[in-house]
Amino acid sequence: MAKYTIGLDFGTNSVRTVIVNVANGKETASASWSYPHGSEGVILTDDVNLARQHPADYIKGAEITVKRALGVAKRSSKTFNPRQVVGVGVAATGSTPLPVGRSGRPLALEKRFEKDPAAMAWLWKDHTSIEEAEQITQLARKMRPHYLTKCGGVYSSEWFFSKILHCLRTSPDVFDAAYTWVEAADWIPAFLTGTEAPEKVSICICAAGHKAMYNDVWGGYPDEKFLQSLHPKLGDLRGRLKDRAKTIAKPVGVLSAEWARRTGLPEGIPVAAGALDAHLGAVGAGIAPGKLVKILGTSGCDMVIVPADRQLRDIPGLCGIVRDSIVPGFIGLEAGQSAVGDIFNWFVGYVAPGGKRSGSHSVLTKEATALCPGASGLLALDWNNGNRCVLVDPRLTGMLIGQTLHTTGSEIYRALIEATAFGALTIINRLEQYDIKVEQIVSGGGVAEKNPLVMQIYADVTGRAMKPTHSSQACALGAAIAGAVVAGEYPSVPEAQKTMTSLKKKVYKPNPKVATVYGKLYKLYKQLHDAFGTTVWKGSCFNVMKELLEIRTEVSNQK
Amino acid sequence: MAKYTIGLDFGTNSVRTVIVNVANGKETASASWSYPHGSEGVILTDDVNLARQHPADYIKGAEITVKRALGVAKRSSKTFNPRQVVGVGVAATGSTPLPVGRSGRPLALEKRFEKDPAAMAWLWKDHTSIEEAEQITQLARKMRPHYLTKCGGVYSSEWFFSKILHCLRTSPDVFDAAYTWVEAADWIPAFLTGTEAPEKVSICICAAGHKAMYNDVWGGYPDEKFLQSLHPKLGDLRGRLKDRAKTIAKPVGVLSAEWARRTGLPEGIPVAAGALDAHLGAVGAGIAPGKLVKILGTSGCDMVIVPADRQLRDIPGLCGIVRDSIVPGFIGLEAGQSAVGDIFNWFVGYVAPGGKRSGSHSVLTKEATALCPGASGLLALDWNNGNRCVLVDPRLTGMLIGQTLHTTGSEIYRALIEATAFGALTIINRLEQYDIKVEQIVSGGGVAEKNPLVMQIYADVTGRAMKPTHSSQACALGAAIAGAVVAGEYPSVPEAQKTMTSLKKKVYKPNPKVATVYGKLYKLYKQLHDAFGTTVWKGSCFNVMKELLEIRTEVSNQK
Repeated sequence: MAKYTIGLDFGTNSVRTVIVNVANGKETASASWSYPHGSEGVILTDDVNLARQHPADYIKGAEITVKRALGVAKRSSKTFNPRQVVGVGVAATGSTPLPVGRSGRPLALEKRFEKDPAAMAWLWKDHTSIEEAEQITQLARKMRPHYLTKCGGVYSSEWFFSKILHCLRTSPDVFDAAYTWVEAADWIPAFLTGTEAPEKVSICICAAGHKAMYNDVWGGYPDEKFLQSLHPKLGDLRGRLKDRAKTIAKPVGVLSAEWARRTGLPEGIPVAAGALDAHLGAVGAGIAPGKLVKILGTSGCDMVIVPADRQLRDIPGLCGIVRDSIVPGFIGLEAGQSAVGDIFNWFVGYVAPGGKRSGSHSVLTKEATALCPGASGLLALDWNNGNRCVLVDPRLTGMLIGQTLHTTGSEIYRALIEATAFGALTIINRLEQYDIKVEQIVSGGGVAEKNPLVMQIYADVTGRAMKPTHSSQACALGAAIAGAVVAGEYPSVPEAQKTMTSLKKKVYKPNPKVATVYGKLYKLYKQLHDAFGTTVWKGSCFNVMKELLEIRTEVSNQK
Repeated sequence: MAKYTIGLDFGTNSVRTVIVNVANGKETASASWSYPHGSEGVILTDDVNLARQHPADYIKGAEITVKRALGVAKRSSKTFNPRQVVGVGVAATGSTPLPVGRSGRPLALEKRFEKDPAAMAWLWKDHTSIEEAEQITQLARKMRPHYLTKCGGVYSSEWFFSKILHCLRTSPDVFDAAYTWVEAADWIPAFLTGTEAPEKVSICICAAGHKAMYNDVWGGYPDEKFLQSLHPKLGDLRGRLKDRAKTIAKPVGVLSAEWARRTGLPEGIPVAAGALDAHLGAVGAGIAPGKLVKILGTSGCDMVIVPADRQLRDIPGLCGIVRDSIVPGFIGLEAGQSAVGDIFNWFVGYVAPGGKRSGSHSVLTKEATALCPGASGLLALDWNNGNRCVLVDPRLTGMLIGQTLHTTGSEIYRALIEATAFGALTIINRLEQYDIKVEQIVSGGGVAEKNPLVMQIYADVTGRAMKPTHSSQACALGAAIAGAVVAGEYPSVPEAQKTMTSLKKKVYKPNPKVATVYGKLYKLYKQLHDAFGTTVWKGSCFNVMKELLEIRTEVSNQK
């Protein structure tokens, strides 16, 4: 009798549940549900930097999608029985921390806080905590420089402690009411298994390691003295943060009777420790040494793993280097580009070449496909939303050079795609510079699914085959793989991946005819990159962009 | 009884004739006529650099527009009689040389050559002669460096000898059939006065001095040995080029009986030496020391004059410094921007933000007017068509920096306007650096007429009042002023200007509130300008743009 596991993927706008056959990784059924709170699931205010989610949506979303997916499975297969489901895994966005009370229940579920954004889940893309991030980075540089060595040298406004410190400052009532804070990726497995209580809750190595400076080497989370220096109350919180990190190969508990009843799943099946969606996406895409997984959506996320016994130097400019984070037994490395599809969307939506119309992307893509690399004379920098790796500077802006009186919208569109590909190559080169080989690229995400031109340009620019992952739900598949491992169906994550993941037949191979041109263009890209993005390059133009921003700020303040 | 003079203005697409009251400069009547040859008067081929005009259009255009203008004047005033017209002046584009036979008749008017573009007038914007220009510049640098001191250090592909040398190489039959070459600005007054024969034809100091390295200091045109070194046949031509340059205050002859009959004008009235349209536009705009005349159309032309007795150092990067060229008795200086309105037209027509629609310019202008300087964080270089002054490099390209995911089309539009204003300030600064004061700016041309936002930004960026010229036909008015001077109605061009030119009431004054921001933005513009446009700036990015062009050329050649 076939066995199945369930993967839940809590995204930015919706949650998706897939039921996967453990023997071959095939998706038997799936269901998704859009969060009802806010705008497409995201609670917004006048502050453009603010983005929150309501934890009630996670609870309801888990119940609805699991029930629906089981219903679909039953309808599509006469032999399917929910009792065949042997394990559960959970993927969630992050860093998405939420304040919880003494019992582990989120404050937002209490009547008095139910409409207070500060009491909700602080979504990964919430940027309210820029000043706090800056402060944490500055303090760590002085006091604990090693804390920054595993996260690219700069602590981000998107991360755990920046958000908590910002809450402490701007919503002290919420901070004071909270007993502690947990990541969504930890709280969801906890409520499924009844282990929400702060004494019991497990934390995943993935979110803690990549977003909260957690590392076994220095004893887990940052020490009390360090947090104290940021704020005495943050120091006090340290005692209530438990250094109990688990990999996805470990269960946090078993499905509670209540959740068995609510969903129709068997009581007592193991639930794996949660993990960040991108990282489980890498698992679902078949990440392995030498095989970079690139998730291309509105932004870009790159992940690689190396055996845990390898001596790895610190790699400047990488978002995260964490042992056991992606695949247990390996060091997980994460890099990323702060905008990919968002840049193409900006051009189509804000500049609107040829007019805002449905299909603008496909028209521009068609025209851009007909162009030869280098023929437009254009070159762009892909920094419209800053640069996450390897410069780690969110304030950087975009650039386009080479316009004539005949430059067309599709030429610019292609130059923007190429710019993101050059950004991708810069990350790969940084990895290889530190002896981490990138032989092939497995790609997933919306842009990878929809745009063959982007895939081909990435293959041509990086000089590496781009292999699309078979599943369009790699994150949920990765969660189901974790479920299969904690259920004992496989001895390890890599063993499960071997049978449960696959690639599409279509492979985008580098076209050797354009390698020379792209080599030359990349050299120029790198020059602009260094001239405008660093202070190292002698006599660079680095100050131009920054000073423009200062002027912009000054002018905005004067209004 | 009122006296009138006639000004003819031979433009790129049409010819216009105005009849002006000598006592006050008021336009009594006007008529224009579009050239029938080619596309809007310009003969084009597969070679995108080629642009020619047919001299038959000049003849027909003179006849038709003068007759029509006289008709309009008669109809609008019962007292007007063509016998009240006392003089004629002629403006024409240039350098627009045409090959003529032994009798001075253009080869294109002969049956065998009537369809040969090489036998026609080589329009100012013909760019087929890039290699020849380069060769002339190189030779002059080695052999006669002083030849380049009056034209910004680089001889242009748009100019007289580049075009003749290119004809010699690519259409030797035309070159061999030609006795000599004359500028359109010289040939038109010549046929009106029956002085076309090479022994009689006058040349204007304006075209000769600014476009053909003509200077009394070294005996007129470049010497035979120099031209010989370019090509033996060009050396032979030197003997047939007459060093007989005249200012606009001198007649080239009197209206012939034939042309009196063809037009209805009185026979024997004096016809002034021709001049380049922009220069007569400066006269018509009231150019005077301290008063820069800026013609803002698809491209930009800046002119200033200084008293001829002033000791002037050579000014690098200026298009032309020629005694008596604009106003007799003064040194005429010309600078310019190779694209102004063309850049805005490019953005609207090629990138088409919001869609191609009538009124795009006005929509974008309205939105851009509401923006604060510096608020978009954008900065552009205005080099989409190269840089004419002060870098004198036609291969340079545009640049835009500072884009975010929220940058709008109107923000880019404004940045492009500001970029052209920064380009204008760079020219002014170069003049002042060489002790030529620019106290106010008189503006004319299409963009100046149509777009108050452009005027205001230029005033704010340059810190100088922008005063629009009263006449929208400043070039034709300038020609009529020349006609009034050769008719003896005024003792000099400045005396005629005093009564015959005026400004609009509307003056665009610099807004002191934005001076600081524009000062900062200009500093950054200058940095990019020097970094990408020169090789002087240490550690600059100068090579990026050039190398992109080399790649573009390589790729095009591979196709």
